[in-house]
Parts: sequence; C-alpha cells; structure tokens
Amino acid sequence: MIVLLKPNPDKAQLDSLIKWLESKGVEIHPTVGTTQTILGLVGDTSHLDIDLISALDIVAGVRRVQEPYKNANRKFHPDDTVIKVGNTVIGGGNLTLIAGPCSVESEEQICAIAQKVKESGATLLRGGAFKPRTSPYSFQGLRDEGLKLLSVAKKLTGLPIVTEIMDIAHLDSFDDVDVIQVGARNMQNFELLKALGNTRKPILLKRGLSSTYEELLMSAEYIMAGGNNNVILCERGIRSFETYTRNTLDISAIPVLKQLSHLPVIIDPSHASGKSALVAPLACAAVAAGADGLIIEVHNDPEHALCDGPQSIRPEAFDALVKKLGRISSAVKG
Amino acid sequence: MIVLLKPNPDKAQLDSLIKWLESKGVEIHPTVGTTQTILGLVGDTSHLDIDLISALDIVAGVRRVQEPYKNANRKFHPDDTVIKVGNTVIGGGNLTLIAGPCSVESEEQICAIAQKVKESGATLLRGGAFKPRTSPYSFQGLRDEGLKLLSVAKKLTGLPIVTEIMDIAHLDSFDDVDVIQVGARNMQNFELLKALGNTRKPILLKRGLSSTYEELLMSAEYIMAGGNNNVILCERGIRSFETYTRNTLDISAIPVLKQLSHLPVIIDPSHASGKSALVAPLACAAVAAGADGLIIEVHNDPEHALCDGPQSIRPEAFDALVKKLGRISSAVKG
Amino acid sequence: MIVLLKPNPDKAQLDSLIKWLESKGVEIHPTVGTTQTILGLVGDTSHLDIDLISALDIVAGVRRVQEPYKNANRKFHPDDTVIKVGNTVIGGGNLTLIAGPCSVESEEQICAIAQKVKESGATLLRGGAFKPRTSPYSFQGLRDEGLKLLSVAKKLTGLPIVTEIMDIAHLDSFDDVDVIQVGARNMQNFELLKALGNTRKPILLKRGLSSTYEELLMSAEYIMAGGNNNVILCERGIRSFETYTRNTLDISAIPVLKQLSHLPVIIDPSHASGKSALVAPLACAAVAAGADGLIIEVHNDPEHALCDGPQSIRPEAFDALVKKLGRISSAVKG
Amino acid sequence: MIVLLKPNPDKAQLDSLIKWLESKGVEIHPTVGTTQTILGLVGDTSHLDIDLISALDIVAGVRRVQEPYKNANRKFHPDDTVIKVGNTVIGGGNLTLIAGPCSVESEEQICAIAQKVKESGATLLRGGAFKPRTSPYSFQGLRDEGLKLLSVAKKLTGLPIVTEIMDIAHLDSFDDVDVIQVGARNMQNFELLKALGNTRKPILLKRGLSSTYEELLMSAEYIMAGGNNNVILCERGIRSFETYTRNTLDISAIPVLKQLSHLPVIIDPSHASGKSALVAPLACAAVAAGADGLIIEVHNDPEHALCDGPQSIRPEAFDALVKKLGRISSAVKG
Repeated sequence: MIVLLKPNPDKAQLDSLIKWLESKGVEIHPTVGTTQTILGLVGDTSHLDIDLISALDIVAGVRRVQEPYKNANRKFHPDDTVIKVGNTVIGGGNLTLIAGPCSVESEEQICAIAQKVKESGATLLRGGAFKPRTSPYSFQGLRDEGLKLLSVAKKLTGLPIVTEIMDIAHLDSFDDVDVIQVGARNMQNFELLKALGNTRKPILLKRGLSSTYEELLMSAEYIMAGGNNNVILCERGIRSFETYTRNTLDISAIPVLKQLSHLPVIIDPSHASGKSALVAPLACAAVAAGADGLIIEVHNDPEHALCDGPQSIRPEAFDALVKKLGRISSAVKG
Repeated sequence: MIVLLKPNPDKAQLDSLIKWLESKGVEIHPTVGTTQTILGLVGDTSHLDIDLISALDIVAGVRRVQEPYKNANRKFHPDDTVIKVGNTVIGGGNLTLIAGPCSVESEEQICAIAQKVKESGATLLRGGAFKPRTSPYSFQGLRDEGLKLLSVAKKLTGLPIVTEIMDIAHLDSFDDVDVIQVGARNMQNFELLKALGNTRKPILLKRGLSSTYEELLMSAEYIMAGGNNNVILCERGIRSFETYTRNTLDISAIPVLKQLSHLPVIIDPSHASGKSALVAPLACAAVAAGADGLIIEVHNDPEHALCDGPQSIRPEAFDALVKKLGRISSAVKG
Repeated sequence: MIVLLKPNPDKAQLDSLIKWLESKGVEIHPTVGTTQTILGLVGDTSHLDIDLISALDIVAGVRRVQEPYKNANRKFHPDDTVIKVGNTVIGGGNLTLIAGPCSVESEEQICAIAQKVKESGATLLRGGAFKPRTSPYSFQGLRDEGLKLLSVAKKLTGLPIVTEIMDIAHLDSFDDVDVIQVGARNMQNFELLKALGNTRKPILLKRGLSSTYEELLMSAEYIMAGGNNNVILCERGIRSFETYTRNTLDISAIPVLKQLSHLPVIIDPSHASGKSALVAPLACAAVAAGADGLIIEVHNDPEHALCDGPQSIRPEAFDALVKKLGRISSAVKG
Repeated sequence: MIVLLKPNPDKAQLDSLIKWLESKGVEIHPTVGTTQTILGLVGDTSHLDIDLISALDIVAGVRRVQEPYKNANRKFHPDDTVIKVGNTVIGGGNLTLIAGPCSVESEEQICAIAQKVKESGATLLRGGAFKPRTSPYSFQGLRDEGLKLLSVAKKLTGLPIVTEIMDIAHLDSFDDVDVIQVGARNMQNFELLKALGNTRKPILLKRGLSSTYEELLMSAEYIMAGGNNNVILCERGIRSFETYTRNTLDISAIPVLKQLSHLPVIIDPSHASGKSALVAPLACAAVAAGADGLIIEVHNDPEHALCDGPQSIRPEAFDALVKKLGRISSAVKG
C-alpha cells in the first residue's frame, strides 16, 4: 500500500500515523521528494482500513498495491479450487452444465425438465423457489413448497440441486440443497454472506449488477473468512447503457477472475441477455473464453410459456447447444 | 400498457393472450396497422407481470404507460406525505437536518456529537451501529452495544435516532430506534423490505448505487404494500465513471422523485461525495433543488480522526453550514 | 411509433398535431381509454423527429416501434452485406483477420510486422498514422509520413491497409488506404461521417465508449445516407465501472448487431481489454459468438517495447491464436 | 508518478527503464520491499506516457500522483481565470447567464428571444446554427445562414454570441461569434481542439457524456497547449442508467472542477435534464453549488412549439428564474 502525504505534513501527526501503522505490523519505507512525500507500506496490508487512512488530515491519497482479498487470491493459492457436488465436480478443467426452469411450478414441470436436461448432459438442476422480484405484486415463487419439489426431482434424477436463498431465516429449509445461490442483488448482503460462511455448502455467488471484480472477490472473501472455501463465482451480466439486452455479459470476467482467483467461474447467459435468442451465442463465447461452466434456463412447455422468462430456451435447443459447446471446448483445448 | 405484436401473430395464441389479459381485469383496445398490430391495455395494469408477457412467442415488445407503483405514486396521493418522528416532522415543506457520526464508538463520543448537532439545529441523530463494510476484515460496528449507546444519547438530548438495519434477525433490537435506515446495498433485499412493511416505523430507504428512480419507488412500494406508509426516500449518490468522488450525487432525483411520488426526499451529501470538502456545496445544492432534508456525517474529535470517514465534517463546519442552508431555503421560497 | 397523450388534451392542439403527422405521410390510429389516449402511427416514421413531438404540451411520451435506421436495417435488407477489399472479402461467413502495430513507427517496423502477420493468416494490415491521444503531450503518430510507410508495406505484402482518420481535412491523403477507420471518440462526429458517406471507401466504424447499438447503427446510417454502403461495424469495448480492464468487451454486440443489421461485425479484443493477456480469450469468444472478423494489435520488437501498447501481442502469440481461432470457427459451424 | 515493478524484475530491463526515465528529466526514488519494488518518480511527469510505461514487461502498474494537465491546473495557477467577452466577464465571482433558443430558425425568432432574455438579465445569447443530431434525417440547423441571423440579433441587442462548431472547416464563418462552443460529442475531437487552440476566441468546452473530470481537463489542456487560455468548462449532464431524465446532471462537477482548475465552470440544466420542468430546480442547485454561470434554452412561441426542444422554457419562466437565482446567489455569499 502506498500513502501519499499532502505537502508539508504536520510532524506530530506524521509520527502518530507511522507509529499506528507499525503497530499494525507493517514496515514503512518513506520516499521524500521535493513536492511530495510517499510512504511505501510493506507487509500484510489486507487488514488496514483504506478509508480510515484516507480520512487523515495529512494524507492526500492511498493506493493499494496488493489485493485486499487473501483466501480468494490466486497468489496465495495457485492451484484451481475443485468443488465436489454429488457425483460431479466444478472447476479444474471440467465443463459443468447447470440447467432448469426459471421458477419451480409443479412436480410435473420440474421433474420433466430435470429428466430432459439430464439426458442432454446437464449435471446439476437449477430452479427458483424463492424469487427476487422488483415488484411486490409479481409472483414470488413457491418458496418452501418449491424446495420440496426440487427434492423430488433430485431423488428422481440424481441431479444435485442449485437454488437461490434470499434470507438467513430460510437457511434451515436448505438442507437438501446442494449448491446455494446468492443472487446479484444480495452480493453485498454481508450478514447473509457471513451466515453462509458458517456452513460448508457450496455457494454460487452471483456478481452484482454494477459490481467490480474486486467487490465480487471481497464478497467471496466474506464467505471464505468463515471457513467455507466452496465458493463458485458467477458472472451474470452487468448493467450498461444498452437497453436492447437486459444486461451486458462481461466476457472478460472469465479470464480475469481465473487469473486473480483460484475459484471456479460459471456464466449465466440467460440472465445476462434476457433474450432466448442470445443464450446460445453467449454460451459458446463463454466456453471459448475458458469458463468452468454454465447455468442456463430451460423451460418445457411452449403452450404455457406465460410462466417462463423470455430468456428460457426449450429442451431441444439446449440439447443442440450442449453438443456445440462440447465441440468448442475441444477446439479451445486444441 | 401497450403490447406490440410480432407480424402475423398466430390467431389461437392471440385469442388466448387476450382472454388471459381480460381475466386480469384489463380492457383491450387493438390497433391493426399494415405492418404492426398493437394492443392498448386500459385499466389497472400494475399487477401484470411485464416479463411474462414479453416472453410470449407472439409478442415483440411491451411498453408501460402507467407507473408500476401505486401506493408510492403521487397520481393517486396528490398530497405530500408528512411523517411525524418524536417532536419533529419530515416532509411537507419542513427542512429536516439529520446529523451524527459515521459509527457509534463510545458513550462520550455519541453524546458529545449529539449535543453539538442539536445546538446547531439538527432534529434527528444518526450513527452507525451495524456497518456494511466491503471487507470482512474492516470494523463492522459496535452492533447491539452501538444501539444501546444511541439510546443513551437520545435520552440525553431528546433527539430521535436514525440507524441502519442489516438483517431481519436484528429487528427485535430496534425497538428504541425511531427511523430505521435501509442501506443502498440492501435496497433490493426484498425479504427485509417485506419485514419492515409489517412494522409501522418510519423507514429511510436509500437508493441503490445503480438503481433507477422506478426501482427505488418499487422498493418503497414493497414496504408500503405491507401497510407501512412511513417511507422516506434518500438519494446518496450513484456509481458513475468518475473516480474522483466516491459516488455521483444525482441532484435531479429531488425534483423528479417529488413529482413522481408524495414521499419525502432526503439527501446524503456525505456518502454521495466521500469527501468532506464537498459536503457543504452539495448540501446547498440539495436545499436549492427542493430537498426535504439532509443526512450529514459529523465527527467531533480531530485528534482521533482515524475513526471517522473522509466524508465527515466537524461540528463548527456543520454549524456554519446550517446557517447557510437556512438562508438558501428562504431564498428558494422567495 | 406510439404517441401517448396527456389526460384531457386540448382539442385544437390535438387536431393540429394529427394534421401535421398526416402531412408527413403517416396514418393515425387513436385508442381512447378512460385515463389515456394513444395515437398509433402507422407507416414510415423514420423521418419523424421524436424530440419535437415529445416537446408538445399535449404529449406525455413517445415510444418507437420501428427502428429509426433504414439502410442499415436487416428488415429491409435481409442478406448479409459482403464487402470486397483487395483480394479478400469481409462478411458473408468469412473470418477476416486484421493485424498490425498500434502505431506505424518506421519502414522496417511496419514491413516486418506486415510480413509476419501475413504469414500467420492476416488478410489486412492495420497501423495507426493519426493517433487520437487523451494528452496533447503524448505521441500523436507519424501522420502523413505514417500513411506513406503503410503504402510501402502494402506494396511489399499485397495486404490492404486499414488506418484511422481524425479529420475531414486529411481525407485527400487517404487515397491509397483501403479501409478508413473511424475511432470510437469520433463515432458521433457527424460532419466526418457525412464526408465519408460521399466516398465509396469501406469504413470501419468503431462503437463509441458509451454508445448504444442504436446509436452505432444511426452513425452507420449517416454514412449510408450519403450512398456509401460499405460500412463495417466494430465493437471495441464499452466503458464500465470495472477499472481492471481498460474497457469491457460487449460480446452480445455480435449476435445483436447481426440480427438488427446486415453489416459485417468485427471485434477489437486489443483495445477492449487493454491487456495483452486477455487478447486471446476475448478473440476466441468473439469467433465463438459469430464475429465476422477481428482486428488485433501485433508488435514485433520486445526489446523496444516502450513503443507498443500494453495490449499488443507478439507475432508468435498471434500465429498460435490464428490456429486456435480456425479450430473454434469450425467447431461453431459444426 | 509511482511505478510498481513485478517481483524479481530483470536487472538489465530495470536499468534501461531507469536510464530512460532519467533522460526525461525525472528523479527516481526506489523503495525495495520484500515482495514489491516501487519506483517513486519525482519532478515534472506530465510529459510521460503512462501507457508506454505500463506496457513494459517488468512493470506491474503505474499510479499517477500528479495531475497530467498543467495549464488547466489550479496548483500552478491559483487565481481564477476571468474571461472578457464583449462588455461582460465570465468567472471571478460573476454569475453569467447565457440564454437563447435551441436552434436559430428565423430573424424574427432569434431577435425576439434575444431581446426578451436580455431584458431578464442574460448577458450572452446562445442559439444553434450547426446542430449535431443522432439521425441524418433530423433537421441539421440553418448552418451558415444561422450564423448570419445570430449576427443580426447581436447587432440589435449588443449581446455577444455563443454557438457550436462541428468541424474545423467551418471556422472561417465564426469570425463574428464571440464564444465558440464545443459539443459533448466533440470533447475528444482532438484535431478540432488543436485548431481552436490556435485561435484566441473563448471556447465553451462541454463535458462528454461519459467523460471524467480529468478527461475534460485534458481536452481543455489541448486548447491551452496551443496558447489559447480562454477556456470555459461546461457540465451538461452525464449518461447514467436513469432513463427518466435525458442525462444526469453531475452537480459535484462544480466544486471539484473549481478546486482542480482555475477555469470558469458553467452549467447547462436544459440538456442535462431534457425536461423543461427540471430546468429551474437544477439551475438553482447549480448556483447554490457555486457555478460561474448557466446556459439555458429559452423559446418564444408556444403555438409553434414543434420547433423547440422539450427542455426549453418560456421567457416568463426564464424571467422568474433569474430573480430566484439572484436571491440564491446572495444567500450563498452570505
């Protein structure tokens, strides 16, 4: 960390700052220029509060040199994290396909889709029980009943379940859930992250709509600080000025997050675009860029399509897409 | 609401859509053009799920004409909402000043600041007990102990308390809190909003960092749908490409939100800028643009400034600012 | 186009509006609801000025149904535009590789790189002669001398040249340039677009840093309105809140622009990321998503790397990348 | 400037970097830590190309300490720049009001508005002759004829003229123009900026829609590097995710730009909001925040309002606003 001092800093305040920093276990290397004095801080600075230092009267600015996350940082954990879920693994060169409907609606629906996507090659089943909706008047999901139906589909197909949690109070009902999803709007719900850090369940952590890579990794760090290292990062589109797509898939997140962190990176092309016609090209791009997996919305009943999101694709389209993704994955590996 | 159909829509699907819409209680007025057919929906469309309709095969697009919020909408409630808190009111032409430290740190600190800001003209005391921090390694607030210290300061000065809640589970400890703040990162924590809708406490709802006015009003609607109409909207800066300021104060939020809604609008110039030198000019601008109040960070102890955010101002600066704001408020009213 | 009227519009103003719209050759279909009257406009509305109509006292809002661009619109030109440049074509299923240095620096440099990238499979040579730089104190390019050196490299290798124009006044010097590039910062330099519309040269039009798809297509429309249909669209990254990468590649631009328009779509992974390590994964993603080509910065002289941008890759890396892209392209086509 | 080196940098490359930097006239202060070596650069670094240094193999990152602009920097020119235009001055505590129609349409129109706004207190006349329009099919302004009509209005009222230039080639026609405006979309049209730097005309430089303060000041620096110090900065709204307003006025730009630079700062509330109802509150906010002036669209003919933008206000509204702004300006000064 580098602390830039204002010109002619008060001597007493500077001594007090240096003493305080040293008490935190960092070494200080000052550079005195004609117009600017710089303190180079060497050692573990991840526990220093950058805002507090910036607030000091004598400080002009603070620049980080090291990343503020440790457990999630590839520098300290060079090997890929591989997460075992049921009979499958996420990360480590595996291409994981998670598929299922936007919302769980009925036993028939979730079981039928589960069987279909399993046949096509999906290894995990997704489905929303608790639904975060912008409007209080929109369908909020089947909630506990939805979790039960997911368990039925899991028993039938053997597919582990991925579903979203919206509040700590619901955690007790998530016993049979294999991967707990944290939605984009809860990426900085720090109390929820802490609670999930106290479990040992794999957590699929979605990036917030306008969050940076560092903020995503700091949220992962919240979970890992509790001892739960089973974190899967998920890029699901950021908010941009473009309104044609619901969000804008940040494809660079794949190589960058994999470089900064050892955690697996999953892409959600369905929510990223909000349009079924874009799911296949975005999924192909994600695999070509090195994603560890995809989470895709698949619906089953075009006649009652009122109940599916505009970003869901049909089982036949999913089946064709899986074949294409396999070819691209091989092409990338050479 | 206007539904744009794709060219040559399937007759059976169109009939089914029209029947479904009519079953929701809306009247349909079709406009048949040579290249485009449009359905004009007349009646209360706030309960229709725009995403579901957009997903239909025969639909090219949906455009809202009416706002999707009702309780928060000025069209249906033309008069300003005025919220009584202790001996003061928020809204209705009153200029409310909320002031206090970033975090509650000790009884001496919070009581000293409370007395200072009261003398200058603040009518509510703010102070963080539960602190949402990007890093799990940063100070997370005194939590329950912080709430107790706020109560001590309230008893001493008579100032009602404003403080942030981070999880439903903490609600029981907020009995003596007068106004519960929902932070920007929790603006779409829908389960929390629902729980607060079941209380009758005034809620200070902060706008999310990249949220639109409509999304803010829909989050207010979540609270109001539970029967709690005591919602105060708070603009605290949006994320922009500018990195010189921590966030970018959206000053237009004041006249726009007051036009769209009857709820009071409060401005937070401290978090909007992240720099103490900008607090005064932004506060002046907010009052000139018609804000119902301000929430400002004030610290008291420059010698130990390590504990205050870079956006806090000193009591003397707050005192001078209050006088200036009074003059501007009079100038605006003419 | 749909015009939403305010409640109880003035009769005389409404009649005057309808008469004016009819004089522009559009048919009017009014829908009268209890709270809202809507005018459905049928016919060619691309020449109507949406701002002027919105400004009317009786108008609450205007919503477009049809795209405001015509020549660039796939609806009216279903077949892919294929642009012939020298011995190669851009568009129509071809994967075009444009490569070369950030800036032209010397005859040795540009000729050496041109030969290298040609051997690897590039079919066009890029190189900056006029350089748009944020600072007036940065190197501004060799300008006219740079154009001459590009011509030398073209003569030597037979590769057609792509280079950027920064002002109409320079157009005379661009005779030997095969594809004229318009930079992101000039995407809405309308006078320049008009001047280029009067030539018949292929134009590589880069998307502005915060422009929408529609704005990009409207800028293409400016060129095409002058009779020059040889426009190549180029996505080169948008500005986002992420600062780790210089810009954020909007990979969705590929399928969306190809759906909305018949013009070829080229991706610039070098400027999109600003980091050489990201060029390969982004290039792979672009080909997987269906791009018509890539424009990539390649430098040749690691010992004097001070003169190359941080996003340039070396000839050997380019060579390996081209092979990978070929495999992915085949995998996508199946 | 601070250069962060990668761990274990190549000795020869490091020596070559240090030698190169010293040849540019800067002193090097290295800080060698256990995991990181830092070079502190002391001296005038504004001429160093940050991109080139970042591109070096041994460099992990570069952080600026000093601003890259010099002529526009308040540090080197502590006193406010005051620009004389006709009989009035811009900057230095004066509140300048620039008013006039969106587009010049006829002699009657421009002269009538000029007289009206002069009576209300405007000291400069604005009016568009060359109009940057997103669509090639929209009205592009009266161009040279518009400039002539502005001159007629100037002769009649004595008000100096402010109007926009769109291309260097038009510069000859701008002889009688007193302040040349550079539009937001041309803020980084560097060739145009250079040409204007060679004149001695006052330049009203509008901030780009997604530009940072530093980028705006670097564009001012382009003009000033040519010897023309008569630059007026203009904030006119940035692009944000909010679609209710056309743009989002960044009110913080006023205190920040005035702190970073000595140049006058003018606010355009008309384009910032795109809505006439927001012009007054935003103008009031701008004056309260310390703006040096305002540029406001005023139209005169409500019956033919089709020709005015939705953000124009009527002369009576402008007259009332001017009175209010005077009161606020006095209140701010105390």
